[in-house]
Amino acid sequence: MKFEPYRRKAYYYETDRMDIVHHSNYVRWLEEARIDLMEKLGCPFTETEKMGIVSPVLSVETHYKYPVRFGDEFEVRCTLSKFNGCAFELDYEIYNITSDKLSCTAHSSHCFTTSDLKPIRLKKHFPDIYEKFFDAVEDDGN
Amino acid sequence: MKFEPYRRKAYYYETDRMDIVHHSNYVRWLEEARIDLMEKLGCPFTETEKMGIVSPVLSVETHYKYPVRFGDEFEVRCTLSKFNGCAFELDYEIYNITSDKLSCTAHSSHCFTTSDLKPIRLKKHFPDIYEKFFDAVEDDGN
Amino acid sequence: MKFEPYRRKAYYYETDRMDIVHHSNYVRWLEEARIDLMEKLGCPFTETEKMGIVSPVLSVETHYKYPVRFGDEFEVRCTLSKFNGCAFELDYEIYNITSDKLSCTAHSSHCFTTSDLKPIRLKKHFPDIYEKFFDAVEDDGN
Amino acid sequence: MKFEPYRRKAYYYETDRMDIVHHSNYVRWLEEARIDLMEKLGCPFTETEKMGIVSPVLSVETHYKYPVRFGDEFEVRCTLSKFNGCAFELDYEIYNITSDKLSCTAHSSHCFTTSDLKPIRLKKHFPDIYEKFFDAVEDDGN
Repeated sequence: MKFEPYRRKAYYYETDRMDIVHHSNYVRWLEEARIDLMEKLGCPFTETEKMGIVSPVLSVETHYKYPVRFGDEFEVRCTLSKFNGCAFELDYEIYNITSDKLSCTAHSSHCFTTSDLKPIRLKKHFPDIYEKFFDAVEDDGN
Repeated sequence: MKFEPYRRKAYYYETDRMDIVHHSNYVRWLEEARIDLMEKLGCPFTETEKMGIVSPVLSVETHYKYPVRFGDEFEVRCTLSKFNGCAFELDYEIYNITSDKLSCTAHSSHCFTTSDLKPIRLKKHFPDIYEKFFDAVEDDGN
Repeated sequence: MKFEPYRRKAYYYETDRMDIVHHSNYVRWLEEARIDLMEKLGCPFTETEKMGIVSPVLSVETHYKYPVRFGDEFEVRCTLSKFNGCAFELDYEIYNITSDKLSCTAHSSHCFTTSDLKPIRLKKHFPDIYEKFFDAVEDDGN
Repeated sequence: MKFEPYRRKAYYYETDRMDIVHHSNYVRWLEEARIDLMEKLGCPFTETEKMGIVSPVLSVETHYKYPVRFGDEFEVRCTLSKFNGCAFELDYEIYNITSDKLSCTAHSSHCFTTSDLKPIRLKKHFPDIYEKFFDAVEDDGN
């Protein structure tokens, strides 16, 4: 399922002395886009959190292609690439709209846990959330 | 009472596109120095927190003189300038050791509260902590 | 002159272990709002920078009232309170729209310089910019 | 070649509302450790930069195991795992000394370029730097 990309401009304080956005900030942009995706998917973070579900980051991988500079507008195109009821994975493209270049590709993996980090099987305990993720995934994990 | 200043070098990711440390990071350095002072004072943050005492930031004021650059060593000279048992104030100088220049002067104010932000009178409830702050203050608030 | 406030939501990574936005991030929000104001004022940062004008931060003062939490929408109401052709000052209110509370009041001061930090008199060298700031100021500095 | 790990404590402002260090900050710690390694290797960042050599980040990969919390002491064990004269790769372990647990494993890749991002062959143009990297690598890339 395709969702509208997440968009904003790069802030001044996100740059470093090379006059480009510091590479660590891209990891923060992935999080912004992920939380935006959850909302578009019908599972806003703050609501699933109230239900006792969290989804800690297990891994992140970023590949840097072209810089983003102060004031550049970028979009993060985020896809739910895997989901098996216990865990999920996302693919990202950070696209620099101002320079018309692909700036970064990325990947992250997450699991579903209770707030004290015990694994959760969504299908059994939260079938509604399961359904929404299942419908959104590009690849059902088989 | 004088304490050893807090020292470290400026990190790469703390710089911005002007090739200087971004001014917001100085506010973080003040916090590093404040937590270091609490420890030197005999009231480590994590211990007072376990006793149920927190000290939220009420205000911060920073005056920027000369930049700090990547790799520069700096020290934060931190003084407890006021303390009245319910609240305290700190004065700071951020000194750039590498360039031998005063980089920033600053001031912050704080109160003592429970973790749900109710005011605490240290003298009554935590006389030991009261004593340590009282001994350390340069000006007793009168 | 009144400008539309700057608005966005607080990001997850801007929070700290107290479950509130870390106070240092407010200083970054002031910068976001300031750059937004420059654009609304007709003097976009990147354009004045190309003309050789920068406006370093001389001081910042923040007073914290009520917290902003993850996902809260806030606005920064920014006013040009002083301007004399060489320097300017801004007043800010950070208003938490979600909790309907004033979260922070702030003040910053800046000067106009060349990129190698020599003072600039706008009236003489950049009368167009001077005009725009002059029209926007609430108090003309007298 | 083994180098002393890079050590420090986690700062308060590095935590998030889960009461753990935000995962994006690990990427910054890798940079701190990398710059420290360059110095131990005899190629301090600021010196190679003066020679016109920079080493942009091409990719970063992080795997999160156990959290680091405010005040925890951690070390970053950094190894030069590949080097071919044009590019290099590093492996990292972030070890939480306070909790005695491996917190994160990571990997980054970099190339050598001029400051305007043209590729550099170290062996030809900077044989001294080449030598130092060659001696330090655990695997010479063949």
